[in-house]
Amino acid sequence: MAIKITGTGSYIPNTIEKNEDFYNHQFLNADGSSINSPNEIIVEKFKAITGIQERRYIEDDLLNSDIAFFAAQKAIDDAKIDKESIDYIIVAHNYGDVKHNAEQSDTVPSMASRVKHLLQIKNPKCVGYDLLFGCPGWIEGVIQAKAFIAAGIAKRCLVIGSETLSRVIDQHDRDSMIYSDGAGAVIVEETDEEGGILAHESATYALDEAHFIYFGETNNPEVTAKRRYIKMYGRKIYEFALSNVPKALKTCLDNSGVSITDVKKILIHQANEKMDEAIVKRFYKLHQMEMPEGIMPMTINRLGNSSVATVPTLFDMILKGQVKNQEINKGDIIMFASVGAGMNINAIVYKY
Amino acid sequence: MAIKITGTGSYIPNTIEKNEDFYNHQFLNADGSSINSPNEIIVEKFKAITGIQERRYIEDDLLNSDIAFFAAQKAIDDAKIDKESIDYIIVAHNYGDVKHNAEQSDTVPSMASRVKHLLQIKNPKCVGYDLLFGCPGWIEGVIQAKAFIAAGIAKRCLVIGSETLSRVIDQHDRDSMIYSDGAGAVIVEETDEEGGILAHESATYALDEAHFIYFGETNNPEVTAKRRYIKMYGRKIYEFALSNVPKALKTCLDNSGVSITDVKKILIHQANEKMDEAIVKRFYKLHQMEMPEGIMPMTINRLGNSSVATVPTLFDMILKGQVKNQEINKGDIIMFASVGAGMNINAIVYKY
Repeated sequence: MAIKITGTGSYIPNTIEKNEDFYNHQFLNADGSSINSPNEIIVEKFKAITGIQERRYIEDDLLNSDIAFFAAQKAIDDAKIDKESIDYIIVAHNYGDVKHNAEQSDTVPSMASRVKHLLQIKNPKCVGYDLLFGCPGWIEGVIQAKAFIAAGIAKRCLVIGSETLSRVIDQHDRDSMIYSDGAGAVIVEETDEEGGILAHESATYALDEAHFIYFGETNNPEVTAKRRYIKMYGRKIYEFALSNVPKALKTCLDNSGVSITDVKKILIHQANEKMDEAIVKRFYKLHQMEMPEGIMPMTINRLGNSSVATVPTLFDMILKGQVKNQEINKGDIIMFASVGAGMNINAIVYKY
Repeated sequence: MAIKITGTGSYIPNTIEKNEDFYNHQFLNADGSSINSPNEIIVEKFKAITGIQERRYIEDDLLNSDIAFFAAQKAIDDAKIDKESIDYIIVAHNYGDVKHNAEQSDTVPSMASRVKHLLQIKNPKCVGYDLLFGCPGWIEGVIQAKAFIAAGIAKRCLVIGSETLSRVIDQHDRDSMIYSDGAGAVIVEETDEEGGILAHESATYALDEAHFIYFGETNNPEVTAKRRYIKMYGRKIYEFALSNVPKALKTCLDNSGVSITDVKKILIHQANEKMDEAIVKRFYKLHQMEMPEGIMPMTINRLGNSSVATVPTLFDMILKGQVKNQEINKGDIIMFASVGAGMNINAIVYKY
């Protein structure tokens, strides 16, 4: 018996926001002081570090639950399953539904109930809940699906990662350029095949790190509204991730019994290109190896950081032949990995 | 091997909001029209249906994560465990942290990360996540803890239900009188004893019911702000609950193999006294029995409806001798049950 992903789907929003679209923004430091560089230089530096050239935003009339539904429908179609046979709908997100030009997150009913409603699933035994775990939420959802299947309380789960960060960004913060919208979904189920999820690892660092990513006010001191936005201490996160993610990956791989030389791809949360590369390089260094070329497929330069959605979206796009020079073939060992708000870290070793 | 609750804790906020405190509110119908009764009559009718005389609100300087932490600390102390031995922190809620006089829900980092931070737990392998499942969230968290233990990925979990509905109520809506604040927590773990969780049942009805409880604008048409509040279609919920909760309870009890005559207590979500009584009466009617006296301990008249917090709070208070004429003794069979936004229903048969 194996627990495998039998279908994938993703939704990439239509609106392309290019780096040049930020040239007319008034960027300020966190203390409200002005930045002594023209926006062209700020944006160029940003691109050099994050790798991001453009990102995607949903259209004004859409909600996070809508794009979660779009991705879910594709995953169900891809798996060729009866939607009424799904035991769990797990939706990982962090901000729920935020309407265009609105401040409030709407999480009642849960995103899972909304998606189930949109999918028009009748079976009440299909249980839908939302999982909040920072950017690593989708991977954690797959781990929870595995637990339910292993415990005998589910056979087939729909696991979605969906986020619309464009609705919670501060226009006066350079970090606003990082964030993007997107949704990815998979069907996880018990199969007679071999492979699937071989090992997983999860961790929450909250003693000193809990508030590295937080909800804070605009950088613009002239704005008196109490509205808050997604904020982060980038340098602290970078150092934290570099210290802890490679170790978590190594523990996960050790537990799987797979040799590092058998790992074909590492699908890492598209947080920041430089940080992701540094993490994977250090992971190989822990095994006295150089990072192999092409091991780490990236979509961040065109899609930005869509939080919980980056990993399932990347996985789906590779399988559908939409990531240049990247493929995953039957029997390949891959790893999923993420780090984000909480601060949470997780990883899965998976045999496709 | 059994999966048992080995410690409980709760936090009852200090501020008592009496029914009389609503006499000066301007209540309006959902369509904005005025209600042709003086407030004294409105409040009296409200009390007759819901049983609520007073409810609790947290103080202005507290947050939902603070009271979740207070309850968690008590559960840890009660279980006499080392906090560093906890494998999972599961926090069920629906609105995250909403500051006094603020509109936005803050869910990044997760409530679980905040609680872990406040508990000063160092162990990174203690994984914290939030679970959104409407009012039945705490029971669902216990079911998930059971799954993790059964799957061999955890031995000991902290499961919290915590909500501050006082921060999301519309002053112009009579239903605002229902809602309350509170937090309850338990330690769920693998033990060598017998009993514990004997069976569980979960369901999500989202085809027609998804939006029975929702986020909507104030009843006051003169208010132009876009701010939204917790809202519900009370009549629809009543009919839905009466049709479906008794059946779910019966299925759960049937699966446990326990006879209805052995059930000592039913700890049902404190939603509305009349509705709760009607549900439990109908459950007994499905077994051709009258509802036994005292089977259904209630705290709603003094504590209101604090969503995810009602069931763990009630359980803790009974065990600590704080609910008049109610006790649970070793070996007693009890049931936990809930219904709420989603619409979600769940139940557990538990041998204490």
